[in-house]
Amino acid sequence: PDQAAVAAVRARDAQLTKPPGALGRLEEIVEWLAAWQGAPAPAIARPLVAVYAGNHGVAAQGVSAFPASVTAQMVQNFTSGGAAINQICKAHDIGLKVYELALERPTFDFTQGPAMDEREAAATFAYGFEAIEGGIDLLAPGEMGIGNTTSAAAIYAALFGGPASRWTGRGTGVDDAGLARKNAAIDAALALHARHLSDPLEIMRRLGGREIAAMMGAITAARLNRVPVVLDGFVVCAAAALLHAIAPDAIGHCIAGHVSAEGAHAEVLATLGKKPLLDLGMRLGEGSGAGLAIALIKTALACHRDMATFESAGVSGKSA
Amino acid sequence: PDQAAVAAVRARDAQLTKPPGALGRLEEIVEWLAAWQGAPAPAIARPLVAVYAGNHGVAAQGVSAFPASVTAQMVQNFTSGGAAINQICKAHDIGLKVYELALERPTFDFTQGPAMDEREAAATFAYGFEAIEGGIDLLAPGEMGIGNTTSAAAIYAALFGGPASRWTGRGTGVDDAGLARKNAAIDAALALHARHLSDPLEIMRRLGGREIAAMMGAITAARLNRVPVVLDGFVVCAAAALLHAIAPDAIGHCIAGHVSAEGAHAEVLATLGKKPLLDLGMRLGEGSGAGLAIALIKTALACHRDMATFESAGVSGKSA
Repeated sequence: PDQAAVAAVRARDAQLTKPPGALGRLEEIVEWLAAWQGAPAPAIARPLVAVYAGNHGVAAQGVSAFPASVTAQMVQNFTSGGAAINQICKAHDIGLKVYELALERPTFDFTQGPAMDEREAAATFAYGFEAIEGGIDLLAPGEMGIGNTTSAAAIYAALFGGPASRWTGRGTGVDDAGLARKNAAIDAALALHARHLSDPLEIMRRLGGREIAAMMGAITAARLNRVPVVLDGFVVCAAAALLHAIAPDAIGHCIAGHVSAEGAHAEVLATLGKKPLLDLGMRLGEGSGAGLAIALIKTALACHRDMATFESAGVSGKSA
Repeated sequence: PDQAAVAAVRARDAQLTKPPGALGRLEEIVEWLAAWQGAPAPAIARPLVAVYAGNHGVAAQGVSAFPASVTAQMVQNFTSGGAAINQICKAHDIGLKVYELALERPTFDFTQGPAMDEREAAATFAYGFEAIEGGIDLLAPGEMGIGNTTSAAAIYAALFGGPASRWTGRGTGVDDAGLARKNAAIDAALALHARHLSDPLEIMRRLGGREIAAMMGAITAARLNRVPVVLDGFVVCAAAALLHAIAPDAIGHCIAGHVSAEGAHAEVLATLGKKPLLDLGMRLGEGSGAGLAIALIKTALACHRDMATFESAGVSGKSA
């Protein structure tokens, strides 16, 4: 983080026509942008929501309320402009890219073996680097993948301790029997892979999905290219938690866009030391919570950039 | 509230390409708009932030960190486009009007007598009706007035019980000595006016300010004209709390845009039965928190209006 840039932001903020601190977290947001863009006058001209879509072998265990065919159908919906994230990006002038990750070939069912082999896991991580191409200045990774809250919950259980039920929720709306199957699948996977869960990259490969591997790459590439990252919900934060387990500093450039209604997302954010900007009971994925947060972030920046100063506006400062 | 309109919104929502309930409070927002606009397909084409500026006799008691001259200077700043609320409204295509309420003639110091006489209180309340002229479809009243968190805290103490310190905060950033003066002024006013505080309109007249009276009128006019209202922070909610004390239903059309960092705003909202959309540690007034909330509200409506349905997008529904 660029502390000189943060100091420049604070110096300007103190001159703006408002009581010190009165914009609350909007002020903190601008400092965060400055710190990680390395810019005393941070800018958001090309924000991007990058949605990664993957299919999951574990979906065959009946862990989701929707059939696995929905992943590809929703990718089509993103392309046609019909999903929630399309409306959010359109409303706030945010770029949207969709990365389809071999949907016709789901990952291996992790209750039976590793979800990905080593070569595929590494290649998918590296594929995530593409997100930062084209000169973007703010990134929100998003995801779509029937079964992926099962994968995310398995990752949390592996990282932070089980049982599965500590981390699972109803995802897209699974019923009691489905939730029981979800917990059973995760607990079986934790037992099967037990001897390999001390290494976060092995957790990613064994219990993750392609979208989670790619998002880890995207978040990492953003860090290396001074692009601040807005975290979305339960599944995106599994990628962040894996990076955090490798090195806490690896997600220093990430802000939590929102806290999801899904399962243990609030606990995950607390563990990662991230205080969410929004708490709207959302649990959709697609980068939707992060996209809404970008609307706030852009507004915070507009206030900082365009407000008058006490001097320019002829407004008196605090009484002596 | 129009329950048929709410039912129409729910019926469409169930067809949109997302799991039921996955957009959380964004779904609730659209239902609220439909209920109070009386429209099965609610719209926000002309949202308005209406900022009321007033000066307060009690400012002479040294209750604020800023001199009273700042009220008029900030009105000039609103007019020139330099304040935070200007940037927020510009970013999200929200109309902004500023109503200056006889700034050269502050209300009477309520530690010495009623802030307003009966005629002025009634006229100012009625003046608030103008906010809804011009066919607006969403209203956020905002305010500016050095000393007005003292007035708001006095109103809460009168409505919900004292002492002053239960309701006061540092406003624009008053120091310990100033906070002590603020508490002393309110406690003195509560004693002076004690025999007249059972009637909310008398509380408004004796302890309120012109901006609070005008906002009560604006909120009331909105209700009568099917215009939903977004509440801002600590001072705006004093107007709402007075209306609520007259009849709880009088603020049924209001949603809480945010919870302020000021004093007891969270407790006020809980008492009014309003759950805030945003919690960003803001304490600026001007309608700034409500303005940001309007950005979310507009996005919620865009999702509801423009998302594809399962049928139109060819997306499978929940598994049987």
